[in-house]
Amino acid sequence: MATTAVRGTFLDFVDDPWRHVGAEQESARFHADGLLVISDGRVADFGPYAEVRARHPQVPVTEIADRLILPGFVDGHIHFPQTRVLGAYGEQLLPWLQKSVFPEERKYADREYAQLGGQHFFDNLLASGTTTIQAFTSSAPVCTEELFLEATRRNLRVISGITAIDQNAPDWFTISPADFEAAAKDQIARFHRQGRNLYAITPRFAFGATEELFRTCQRLKHEYPDLWVHTHISENPAEVRGVPPLHPGCTDYLSVYEKFDLVGPKFTGGHGVWLTNDEFRRLSASGGAVTFCPCSNLYLGSGLFRLGRATDPEHRVKLTFGTDMGGGNRFSMLNVLEDAYKVGMLNNTLLDGSVVPSEQDLAESERNKLSPYRAFYSITLGGAQALEIDDLVGNFDVGKEADFVVLDWNGGPPATAWHMSLLLPDGAPRTMQDAAEVLFGIMMVGDERAVEQTWLMGERAYRKP
Amino acid sequence: MATTAVRGTFLDFVDDPWRHVGAEQESARFHADGLLVISDGRVADFGPYAEVRARHPQVPVTEIADRLILPGFVDGHIHFPQTRVLGAYGEQLLPWLQKSVFPEERKYADREYAQLGGQHFFDNLLASGTTTIQAFTSSAPVCTEELFLEATRRNLRVISGITAIDQNAPDWFTISPADFEAAAKDQIARFHRQGRNLYAITPRFAFGATEELFRTCQRLKHEYPDLWVHTHISENPAEVRGVPPLHPGCTDYLSVYEKFDLVGPKFTGGHGVWLTNDEFRRLSASGGAVTFCPCSNLYLGSGLFRLGRATDPEHRVKLTFGTDMGGGNRFSMLNVLEDAYKVGMLNNTLLDGSVVPSEQDLAESERNKLSPYRAFYSITLGGAQALEIDDLVGNFDVGKEADFVVLDWNGGPPATAWHMSLLLPDGAPRTMQDAAEVLFGIMMVGDERAVEQTWLMGERAYRKP
Repeated sequence: MATTAVRGTFLDFVDDPWRHVGAEQESARFHADGLLVISDGRVADFGPYAEVRARHPQVPVTEIADRLILPGFVDGHIHFPQTRVLGAYGEQLLPWLQKSVFPEERKYADREYAQLGGQHFFDNLLASGTTTIQAFTSSAPVCTEELFLEATRRNLRVISGITAIDQNAPDWFTISPADFEAAAKDQIARFHRQGRNLYAITPRFAFGATEELFRTCQRLKHEYPDLWVHTHISENPAEVRGVPPLHPGCTDYLSVYEKFDLVGPKFTGGHGVWLTNDEFRRLSASGGAVTFCPCSNLYLGSGLFRLGRATDPEHRVKLTFGTDMGGGNRFSMLNVLEDAYKVGMLNNTLLDGSVVPSEQDLAESERNKLSPYRAFYSITLGGAQALEIDDLVGNFDVGKEADFVVLDWNGGPPATAWHMSLLLPDGAPRTMQDAAEVLFGIMMVGDERAVEQTWLMGERAYRKP
Repeated sequence: MATTAVRGTFLDFVDDPWRHVGAEQESARFHADGLLVISDGRVADFGPYAEVRARHPQVPVTEIADRLILPGFVDGHIHFPQTRVLGAYGEQLLPWLQKSVFPEERKYADREYAQLGGQHFFDNLLASGTTTIQAFTSSAPVCTEELFLEATRRNLRVISGITAIDQNAPDWFTISPADFEAAAKDQIARFHRQGRNLYAITPRFAFGATEELFRTCQRLKHEYPDLWVHTHISENPAEVRGVPPLHPGCTDYLSVYEKFDLVGPKFTGGHGVWLTNDEFRRLSASGGAVTFCPCSNLYLGSGLFRLGRATDPEHRVKLTFGTDMGGGNRFSMLNVLEDAYKVGMLNNTLLDGSVVPSEQDLAESERNKLSPYRAFYSITLGGAQALEIDDLVGNFDVGKEADFVVLDWNGGPPATAWHMSLLLPDGAPRTMQDAAEVLFGIMMVGDERAVEQTWLMGERAYRKP
């Protein structure tokens, strides 16, 4: 059992910063000079260098100076076969799918193209510091197979599954419920809990699934209760209006998934932009999660996710953040944080009473402000908690998989370095507050160029060229 | 008189694409193999290579292959002394100014710091492909002087002027109307129409200006009718509520500037997020302009600029686009286009009837869609027209100053190149439609890394390292 260690400046999270309004640093852990001991890919020890070193005097140490080391980023919602088509022009959700997305995803029925896509997809993820994903594929079994195979070779943690759609898509793109069930069962046997892979029952969205398809999903979840459930929810207003008429007896979007016993822990619905207060409360009570995908919500004009409502302490909804690449136009979770901050600030203003006095809610307004604590928690421990994999990843607790990202705060557009020199008169973060300010600079002024290295289970998987 | 030429693939604009709904390509000009002849820094000839070359058989030609050449970008609203403080955390406009901005701007009273800031400022602009700016400075005369001096050395086209605030700011930051008038007159004599510099009467905003300061601005504009007027307007709802009580007799934000005869051609108000329909109509009739600063409007949570309303053909308001760096968190006009697209798409959805049926306005909804034609027009010819300098810059018409940017469409995050290979099966844009698609990719998937070279008056001023 190989044991190694990494010495550097570490920041991770031990709690939800939204539970510590006004004292968010209590949710984080910072070691200006820390040591992370890794054994067999997992954290064996972690803490201040002097203390931990005394317990492991013989372990070989890799020194990483003048960098900030965080747990690897969690992307809760990404579309593997949209890698090449991100940023296609000019439509809201439904026409955009028909015009740009389905034709590209169709190519992933070809194994060779899916393999090529897999190379690009994982190269992009690692260059962005992303080490855990929950991913959609396409309705072709080959696409999902190649995702899991490449994920296994790369050793990222991936939650995914064949992505089923059987209505409101071209014939050449749909899959029958029976074919979906057969492919899913085959893939569950081959991939679920093999290596770092986890399997998700993945009906694409309620607008694209018949009752028969949902009955199939329901059966699968009953038969395999250990599986995840991944889908979309309440992304675009036209879509939201279109769903209840397709599903008799359902009065809102969430009720469709509830009807088929899919909502609960390990359930994630992407977007949730137009969720009602009642749906937020029901989701909160169920233990299900929503993924906030701000790049996509802005790019497709879907709307402003109500971050401050989702984080209401009385009805807290578990949240992952996601790129939704290619509905999102960027691969980097740092860009997601930038756009998440912007969405939050728009909500902050809308709720502060300055626009409509009767809509003032100062507490909800404040919860929309994405401080660096809230931001980086959301793409590390928070994402892992929402996906119910925080026993495996999310921070540097002993026993977790040693996935981490090495950040160079000067990486980014030319404006970055002089900005950082204002925040760091000493040249490096000495305190948690310094680190928080630098992280905010990385998400708002920098970009994926700040990612110098990405490590998976204690092995370096990416180094910036 | 030195004459040179550049051969390459060119795209520029000859009209407003919003006047050509459904046929936007009629507003643009594309030469897959073009030649730009430059004499004494100005365009001497321009067109298809074969034709133009025949008229200039002797001129030495620089060949720029596999790139797209556009007119230099126009940033209509940027704050020179905020270069280092862009992206400061967590506030809406008014507290953000007090906490982060005024203390940094104060440093620019020191000539050495202002010179250092000038180096960073212009380095960033050129690396972003920006060749024309309209800039705020601070209330210290030194700051404005150093901006013009460095602009002269660099040879960018700059509209600027000492930036006056005499209320609602710390004492150490304000300037008296008399001191402002004296400094402005001194600077007008030294800098206005010297080299490429143009002078703007620059009251910071109506919230920070007394009647006496406005009377001074009014006198200056009467005395020097050739000057520009540059200020802020209707950025943040709390600010908008605060302005009329400060200025008796004024019922909305624009009326303050109207009261002192400042509104008309060469007037620009930054932001205009909360302008009423009536203010839009009055601005349109006056010939004054607004600057759309989406990065800033999102970053400070100011709100969604009504792009489709400003471009109403019956009441078209002249528009520049601007970074508003450091209220905007990026220096690049490409990032401005990204966020402008996102703001436009949010408006597109809000006006399509899917949210509130009675608010449906399909024409205004459509005008919010920032096609690549509308986007790149707005940061080249459109910006120049709004600033009333389209006799000098904005496209490659004969006689204009030869400012241009050389774009490498593969520059950007790692996802960029494979995306571009989908758009360009031939490897390079052969038609205007190809070029438009590539430009959209540059603004949504790429970033300032797409700027390979920036040329000022026929001389290369920047080359990507």
